[in-house]
Amino acid sequence: MPFDANHLFSNTANRMRRSEIRELLKLTRKPDIISFAGGLPAPDLFPIEEFKGISVKVLAENGAKALQYGPTEGDPGLINQLVEFEKRGGVEVTPEQVLVTTASQQGLDLLGKAFINEGDPIVMGLPSYLGGIQAFRSYGADMHGVQLDEHGMKVDALKAKLAELKNAGRTPKFIYVVPDFQNPSGVTMNKERRLEVLGLAREYNTLLIEDTPYRELRFEGEAIPPFILLDDEERVITLHTFSKILIPGLRIGWLITKNKMVMDKLVMGKQPVDLCTSPFGQMLLAEYMKQGLLDKQIAEIRKAYHRKRDVILEAFEKHMPKLEGLSWTRPEGGLFLWVKLPEYMSANEIFPKAIDKKVAYVVGTAFHCDGGGQNAMRINFSFPSEEQILEGAKRLAELIAEEAK
Amino acid sequence: MPFDANHLFSNTANRMRRSEIRELLKLTRKPDIISFAGGLPAPDLFPIEEFKGISVKVLAENGAKALQYGPTEGDPGLINQLVEFEKRGGVEVTPEQVLVTTASQQGLDLLGKAFINEGDPIVMGLPSYLGGIQAFRSYGADMHGVQLDEHGMKVDALKAKLAELKNAGRTPKFIYVVPDFQNPSGVTMNKERRLEVLGLAREYNTLLIEDTPYRELRFEGEAIPPFILLDDEERVITLHTFSKILIPGLRIGWLITKNKMVMDKLVMGKQPVDLCTSPFGQMLLAEYMKQGLLDKQIAEIRKAYHRKRDVILEAFEKHMPKLEGLSWTRPEGGLFLWVKLPEYMSANEIFPKAIDKKVAYVVGTAFHCDGGGQNAMRINFSFPSEEQILEGAKRLAELIAEEAK
Repeated sequence: MPFDANHLFSNTANRMRRSEIRELLKLTRKPDIISFAGGLPAPDLFPIEEFKGISVKVLAENGAKALQYGPTEGDPGLINQLVEFEKRGGVEVTPEQVLVTTASQQGLDLLGKAFINEGDPIVMGLPSYLGGIQAFRSYGADMHGVQLDEHGMKVDALKAKLAELKNAGRTPKFIYVVPDFQNPSGVTMNKERRLEVLGLAREYNTLLIEDTPYRELRFEGEAIPPFILLDDEERVITLHTFSKILIPGLRIGWLITKNKMVMDKLVMGKQPVDLCTSPFGQMLLAEYMKQGLLDKQIAEIRKAYHRKRDVILEAFEKHMPKLEGLSWTRPEGGLFLWVKLPEYMSANEIFPKAIDKKVAYVVGTAFHCDGGGQNAMRINFSFPSEEQILEGAKRLAELIAEEAK
Repeated sequence: MPFDANHLFSNTANRMRRSEIRELLKLTRKPDIISFAGGLPAPDLFPIEEFKGISVKVLAENGAKALQYGPTEGDPGLINQLVEFEKRGGVEVTPEQVLVTTASQQGLDLLGKAFINEGDPIVMGLPSYLGGIQAFRSYGADMHGVQLDEHGMKVDALKAKLAELKNAGRTPKFIYVVPDFQNPSGVTMNKERRLEVLGLAREYNTLLIEDTPYRELRFEGEAIPPFILLDDEERVITLHTFSKILIPGLRIGWLITKNKMVMDKLVMGKQPVDLCTSPFGQMLLAEYMKQGLLDKQIAEIRKAYHRKRDVILEAFEKHMPKLEGLSWTRPEGGLFLWVKLPEYMSANEIFPKAIDKKVAYVVGTAFHCDGGGQNAMRINFSFPSEEQILEGAKRLAELIAEEAK
């Protein structure tokens, strides 16, 4: 008689559901489907040859250290490289202000652990990164959404939301933003907004978490200062990762906070979770950076994704029906764009027809903590080839034209 | 003015303290100290050469897959190898019953997440593995300890504890045991005890978590069936890791449960934590196992640690003063033994004197969820060399002799 564990699960476990999104994503993995669905980087750009040489070098020079346990805070050699990398990006940090994480996703989890009690309010964009929503949901966060427009989070809506919470006697634990080429919308928050949002974080005495996996992948236009540069109070926590600017397969990212007390809590939170991030993986990345290869690799990726973005925008322009309410964003960087359908059209309802046409996307509802986003879809352009993008865009346009009223 | 985040921390964060143990451990890392303190495997046994070849092979044959995201459940190639490995150890499992974790420590964390609400009771040995205590404490577990003797957890004490909880209307979420060559005590639970403990888990309708990092490292005596083999109700969850039988530096372990609902919750719990464990690391291990190297490596480690255990036991026999109340365990495998001092002698109080004598250990209190263990110390014999063990044992014996009344 198998054991029924239902009386033993925690509240957290009881909140977990097999996500509908994951079931949909399974459909998109059939081999003949052109998928705009995943958030995967292009594997043909992975520097496989370089990693062969670097693996051998790290093992030859430092094998006993690479294969042993390491410090919870991260490998000092990698941290030094990250300090230099941030400096080249205009951000001055000390090694003590950097925490290596087992990918950016662990950063999100540690932030949930450090700040969220069940029922605590947090504020995020509508839409927002799915992995962030999932991490914060697992801690039982009460998620409040604020609409975006083409310049990022709407400041008036944010102000109203914060005032509403304050009137109810509640302080949000943090405001969560993906400021550059946001996943899923592709939208970048302009500098003015950043200053206003940070000002509101100050006014309402909360933290600002900026998640910046795509920051370096700007195709055009001018870089906008990250929140951490605009902050003079140690109020900002920045998440960064190698997953999109190099490879996801080592599961290594990093987190920056200048607030010593926050860093302390995050380090203490990481210890019982995995003791340390893989020293071998960290030392591979440190060596790769030391050889000056990362900046070149980022330039390559930027060029390739820029081209793919141009291909998809041209194809959409050419093939999409002229419909009132149909629009898409024009990201200045990153991996994603966002299609808004006419209000009467549901991306969820037409999903099976898309699969019939052998094209896939992620439904907008996946990215809305308030259940909205039915008439939107996220389109990834980093993973499919240019040929696939052309053909996939045609199929998607055909579907939308067929559904037009 | 730096931002004060105190009003934002979660209950979990407020429970975290810079551990006294970690501060003590820092002292043990001075270069001239002979340390019996860490739990590190011997780095001179790491198969560095083999990992060079395997790294190049995996990248050449499967680079694009190894450096990409992978499934949350684990790399199918590694899971198949693990199924075969378990089979050689007498445990029949299907691939769906194995979850790859980012080291065993993540397994402990996921179990805490899936089962523990703040204040929930759990039951564990006195002493118990420190990393388990830390993981469960981070979820606010109410930890109840049960004394061990030379055959493992005392069944009468366990029975009394479970009855006491039941009388208070409480069901422990699980019983946590390290059945083989326990960290920290070196004690192995005999088969009779295992059957009784499992029977009590059944009687009180709770789970049994067995943490088995050292199981394969038996020097002498007969292997005792793991709990998962004795269980016919899917009540047991087994944790396993590469950290002690191969290398810790990839941070990869695995977890076994035959209970589908429990597995579902653990997979859902892992997703927001790190999406997946490093595919590159997993594929290195799969290739290493496929080449038949793991079993040979385990035999090497077993031989080396067996020798070191003999060296330390002989040295203790030779140098330790004959004192009433002074004793130590004789582990049949693993990495640790446990010294009990006379009751009047505190391992915590004499620790600074040990550091003065350039020898280190971990104080027994670190492993006691009830604050006990003052007159005990954990001795690791895998990391120091045989020469260091001889000299370190002398220094320790000298200290204890000086403290004798």
